[in-house]
This record gives sequence, C-alpha cells and structure tokens, in this order.
Amino acid sequence: MNDADDDLLVNTRSEPGEVGLVEAHDFVSNAPFTFDNGQTLPGFTLRYETYGHLNATRDNAILICHALSGDHHCAGIHSLNDRKSGWWNNLIGPGKAVDTNKFFVLCANVIGGCQGSSGPSSIDPRTGRPYGITFPAVTIRDMVRTQKLLLDSLGVKSLYAAIGGSMGGMQTLQFAIEYPAFVKRVLAMATTAREGAQAIAFNEVGRQAIIQDPEWNNGYYPKSGGPRVGLAIARMMAHITYLSDASMDRKFGRKAVRPRTAAADSSDSQPSALSAPSDSMEGIDSVAPATAFDVRFEVESYLRYQGKSFINRFDANSYLYITRALDQFDLAAAHGSLEDAFAKVEASTLVVGFTSDWLFPPDQNRDIAIALLRAGKRVSYAELSTDLGHDSFLLESPQLYDLVRGFLN
Amino acid sequence: MNDADDDLLVNTRSEPGEVGLVEAHDFVSNAPFTFDNGQTLPGFTLRYETYGHLNATRDNAILICHALSGDHHCAGIHSLNDRKSGWWNNLIGPGKAVDTNKFFVLCANVIGGCQGSSGPSSIDPRTGRPYGITFPAVTIRDMVRTQKLLLDSLGVKSLYAAIGGSMGGMQTLQFAIEYPAFVKRVLAMATTAREGAQAIAFNEVGRQAIIQDPEWNNGYYPKSGGPRVGLAIARMMAHITYLSDASMDRKFGRKAVRPRTAAADSSDSQPSALSAPSDSMEGIDSVAPATAFDVRFEVESYLRYQGKSFINRFDANSYLYITRALDQFDLAAAHGSLEDAFAKVEASTLVVGFTSDWLFPPDQNRDIAIALLRAGKRVSYAELSTDLGHDSFLLESPQLYDLVRGFLN
Repeated sequence: MNDADDDLLVNTRSEPGEVGLVEAHDFVSNAPFTFDNGQTLPGFTLRYETYGHLNATRDNAILICHALSGDHHCAGIHSLNDRKSGWWNNLIGPGKAVDTNKFFVLCANVIGGCQGSSGPSSIDPRTGRPYGITFPAVTIRDMVRTQKLLLDSLGVKSLYAAIGGSMGGMQTLQFAIEYPAFVKRVLAMATTAREGAQAIAFNEVGRQAIIQDPEWNNGYYPKSGGPRVGLAIARMMAHITYLSDASMDRKFGRKAVRPRTAAADSSDSQPSALSAPSDSMEGIDSVAPATAFDVRFEVESYLRYQGKSFINRFDANSYLYITRALDQFDLAAAHGSLEDAFAKVEASTLVVGFTSDWLFPPDQNRDIAIALLRAGKRVSYAELSTDLGHDSFLLESPQLYDLVRGFLN
Repeated sequence: MNDADDDLLVNTRSEPGEVGLVEAHDFVSNAPFTFDNGQTLPGFTLRYETYGHLNATRDNAILICHALSGDHHCAGIHSLNDRKSGWWNNLIGPGKAVDTNKFFVLCANVIGGCQGSSGPSSIDPRTGRPYGITFPAVTIRDMVRTQKLLLDSLGVKSLYAAIGGSMGGMQTLQFAIEYPAFVKRVLAMATTAREGAQAIAFNEVGRQAIIQDPEWNNGYYPKSGGPRVGLAIARMMAHITYLSDASMDRKFGRKAVRPRTAAADSSDSQPSALSAPSDSMEGIDSVAPATAFDVRFEVESYLRYQGKSFINRFDANSYLYITRALDQFDLAAAHGSLEDAFAKVEASTLVVGFTSDWLFPPDQNRDIAIALLRAGKRVSYAELSTDLGHDSFLLESPQLYDLVRGFLN
C-alpha cells in the first residue's frame, strides 16, 4: 500500500468538506418482525442518519454499518455546540473517501442497540416497562434484515456498497450473503467470519461484570441507574483490546499522573482522550479513599475516563445483547463452510486487515478473502501496516482513505 | 533450544521422584520492618515450605519466588487426599530439574499475600481487625528483603540460585541487585524489568473491578465475604492474559457447552481445568436466570470456573497490593538505567522468554539479558518456542527442564 501513486488521487482529494449539521430520523416498521431465535415483535424502530442524496436511479446508496459501541451518527454534527463529529467523520463527507457529493450515505443504529433503535431499553408496549432481557436475542442477521427493510422503505434499489469495520464488517458480509443481487460492493475491515476463543472470552468477562453487578437486577433497572460499575469495567477491559501494546506504550508508557489535589479532584473539565482526567467515575459511587490504589499512571486515568464516559451513553443490556450477537456470528457454521456461505454472493469485495489488530487479527480477515476467492468471487485483500490495533479502521489514515476511494471509484 | 543434546541428560533424568508430603512453616520476625513506603510494622510473618536439606556448608539453597496468584506451596502435597500438588511440582523434586536430592529448596508466600504471610487480611494487633488497606504498600523489594530475613534465620549462607517466573522473576532480579554477594545464580522467566502500559492497564481494570464492588467497603470486609464478584472478574480477565490466542483456540475454539439441565446445575463435581463445569459461581449470588446470557461456549465455562475457584483462595486486598507492586516495579527508573541497576550484580543469570507470552513478551525478557550483558555480567538468554502464552513457565516442558537442569549443574 505504501507504493500507491498519490498523484492519481490529487483531484478527487482536493478541498474535502464536512457534511455539517445533520439530524437523525426514525424508521418505524409496523410489520411483525421475526427474529432468528423465533420470537416475533409487532414492529420495530431503527434510528438512522443519511448524508448526500439518493440519485434518480436509486443506486448510489452506501450503507455504513457500525461496530459494537457505535451508532447511527457516523458523520457531521447535531448542533453547532458539538465538540465531536460522528464517529467516521474523517472518512465520510463531500470530497472525502466516502464522497457525499456522489453517494447517498446511510447509517442506522442496530436493532438491539440503545441509541434510538428498538432494543432492551425500549418500552415494551405490553408492560409499559423496558423489555430488559425479554427483548428477543439479536443476531448479526437480524441487524441486517431490519436494515434492509429500512433501505426498502427509502426506495433504495441496490447498495452501491456496504462498508463497515469490526461488527460492521460482519454485517456487510451477512448483507451480501442475504441479499446477493442487492449488494454491489462490500468493504469489510478489521473483522472476522467468526471470533476465536480469546475474543469470546473477553466478551464473556464483560458480560459477567455486568450480570454479576447487583444493580443489573435480572436486566430490570431504571434508565438512570443499572449496572454502571459492571458496564464501566466491561468497557475498560474491552478498550484495551481495541488498542495495541505498542500504541499504548507510545501514548502512555509508564507516565505518572500528577498527584491529586483538591482542585484537580473537583475539576469537571473535559479531558482529551489522551490526557489524564480526574479519576472519579461519574455515576459510580466513589468509594475509594485516597489510597495506594488511586490513579498513578496515565493509562489508568485514561481507562477510567473511557469507562465513565461509556456508562453515560450505553445501555448495559444492549452490551449483553450485542456482544452475544458478535460471539454467535459464525458464517462457516451457519452454511457448512465459509466458501459455501459466500456461494451466492454477487458483490465485489475488499477486505482490509490491520497488522496490529489482535482482536480480529489479519489472519481472520485474510481467511474471508481466501474463502471468497475459492468461491469464485471478485475480492481483494489489503493488509495495512499500523501499530494502532483494532481501532485502526476508525483512525486517521490516508492509506485507508486511498483504498476506500479506489474501491468505490 | 531444539538442538540440545538430550543424551547428555539421560542419567540425571532417570526416575525422578516426588517430594511427597510436606508442611508449611511460619517464620515470625519480631524485629521492626520498615517498608519501602516508609511505614514500619513491629514484625511480620512469612509462611514457607522447604524441600531437601541444607548442606553443611549451607550454600545449596535454592529460593523459589512465586507469581501474583501463587504461594509457598510449590511442590509436594499437604495430605494424601490432595488432588493437586504444589504449583511447580513438575519442576521440583528428587531427580527433577530442581533436584531436591541436591538442593535445599525454599519458597515463601510473599509479604502482602494471603496464604499465611503478613498482608492486608492479617489481624492488626492494634485494632484486633484485619489491616485492610492500612497495611503498608508493598514493593517487590519489600518481598525480597523479608525473604532475606527468613533465609538468614535458617542459616542460609548464600543462594545457590533464585528461580522465578513472572513476578517471581522480578523478585530474583531484585534479590541479585539487593544482595549481590549472596545470590550466585538467577533464573528469571517470563518476566520484565518493568511492565508496559498494556500490562498496567489490565491490572488497573482488575483493581477497579474490586474497588468498585460495593462489598469491598474501603477494604474492610469479613474473611468470608468481601468483593467476591470484583475479584472473580479480575481473575477471569487476568487469566486470559496468561494464555494465548492459539492455545485458547486449540483448547476451546468455539466449542459449545451442552444445554443446561437440572442435574448439571446441581452438580458439584470438580471439573478438570479444561472441561466445562457448572456455570454458577460459588459465593457469587447467582442473580442471572436461565437466559441468553447463560454459558454457551466452553471457554466461558472455563473462565467462570477460574473466577469461582480463585475467590475461594485469594484475598481481594492482597490482589490490589500485589498488582500495585507489579506495576510499580521499574528497575531502570529506580537506578537510572537498567544497566546501572545491574552494576553490582554478581550472579550468573539465565533469562528465559516464551515466544507466545504477550503479557511479558520475549522482548522484555531479552532487554534484561542485554542490560546484564552491557553491565559486564555473565548472562544467557533463551527464548522457548511455545504457543501456551505467559503461563508457559508453569507448564510441562522438557525443553525448560533441560534448560534449568543445565543452568544449575
């Protein structure tokens, strides 16, 4: 990838813009939907955003599929006061790699999620209370089938491309398998056709942290409460698996935080993702006095901040549901073999692995490409050298942008 | 290492025996001991075991240093009903690599621990209650200095060798630095002269799981209670870091457990370490009903068992103290540079790294050997090819036995 001829791309790259102010919409389906586990809901909602315009032939749509902790807000801002743009804003926009001047880009919060789509925190009309763990178990295929209904409702005739990383990559593959004629291109990054034992193990520890938190209460908890400690622990641990040893050493190493002061403790200024914020977890009772176990290293501070911010935006039951969907996803088992799984795929596929990704390592990405090749499909595989770990697909990377741009043009 | 000439070792290897029934002893020091953090206790206790006999010249002693969750019981059995021998029984015994026919082998539970040595769960004579987090912060150097007092009390004139893996390896290095003339040989495995950010991060998540558990109660909890959930979560997560992706895939892969039955639920039979035991955590309130979040994969079952068995043998405050000691250990920072740290070392050293160890990776082991070399010391470095991860040093390995035997002879 280092040898790509940048000159060819100069024109398309000039003056990329921003999608700017965006707002979310709700797709409300009132048709009964039967989940893979056999349970039926009378309907469901998906919250989504779109950028750009559907063309007259209705074939310029690109579906963006989000990862475990992502949502529908992948580009732009919701208000001029927003400090952060959508999670893939670096990739999506006018003149960017996913060019909203050309494409109608759509991203929906997955079913089972907690950002406006139906999930365990939604109100069950039969009881007037949140579904909790009575919400049907969700699979990657359920996520895909509900998004297809949304695309149908918008009049999308075919997907120019489905793009996603991590769990998003799983969805793009499942989409191409489920709706072969509908999906023209698949771009799957940092993903897997099935997790290994280590990835399942980390997810299981996260689930146990939540389930064994007394505040989980069998999944019934108020919106403002619940197993915040368990969820924060799950997130802190998972966050380590999204980075790499090398990137953590470079960012944090063994750097110590400055000793606590009263002023520092009461500070509520928002730290940057890489600075050392206050070590109290908002919403977690701060039971620890100033002891040998206060934060000492910057990396500790960073992780505590990650845990703290996650519990304010994510629902613990959704975390359980979605990690289960990840763990259960197994295209080979579902179809006899991975090659068989891809037998009917019509899409051209680009699979991108990242060398330092130890959650869904390059091997697992390469295996997808090899199986597609063996099934006689058009597929390319790229492995990007990075030391930023699993999250590489989300981070600033001209190499990745060039790949995406090249694949879409 | 694959080319070692096994023939040379045939004789020494014949008919290894067992140390058999052993019992622990307590070394009670009534002299005030001042910890690295400046706090002084009027005395302390170390629980230890010995195998073999101290010779007339009192120079055949080998000190075994244990890892985070280990203890003094590293060989033999305590009763004929014991199902398991000490944790390094495969290495230590008559005719084994650490030959108790030749050597006087000693292992002590570290200060700060919870298996009979003074630590946070010990009773503070001033209050009649456990010290809890008023116990002085413990360092690797404190562990070493207290063990030196024990060795002195037994009349040991010099250590033929200090041997340890992981935190045990840290202790062996610290021993050679602190008491250069006393330590003749150091065998440090799967260890580091200072942890990287990722290792600190995992320890921090474990500590937070404990500290944020309401049952932790600022470190004051009854012996039978305490933050059992938090400690189990910490252990489950840490256990993943002791294995490797490859070994987990080989052992567990995506194998499913059999569906729950009433009989299986009520079974209290002891599962083997690799089988799928009951998924209820003894001592953890089983709040989860039979749901989508019951155990599905064998690896989940295995981890739950690891968590469950750990909380019945380990004290949560000790876990906090000892992980802090691990994180704070930094020979380079303490001495200006790693080379300076080793300046006065007199021991011959063998450092052993394991290729699949991603907790204390081979690089970190090699760095120790390189620094010793630069400091002009006698040192060898061996890197063993294994896919068993950090725990490789604990597992059956004729290659490792040959290395140890060769180094000691």
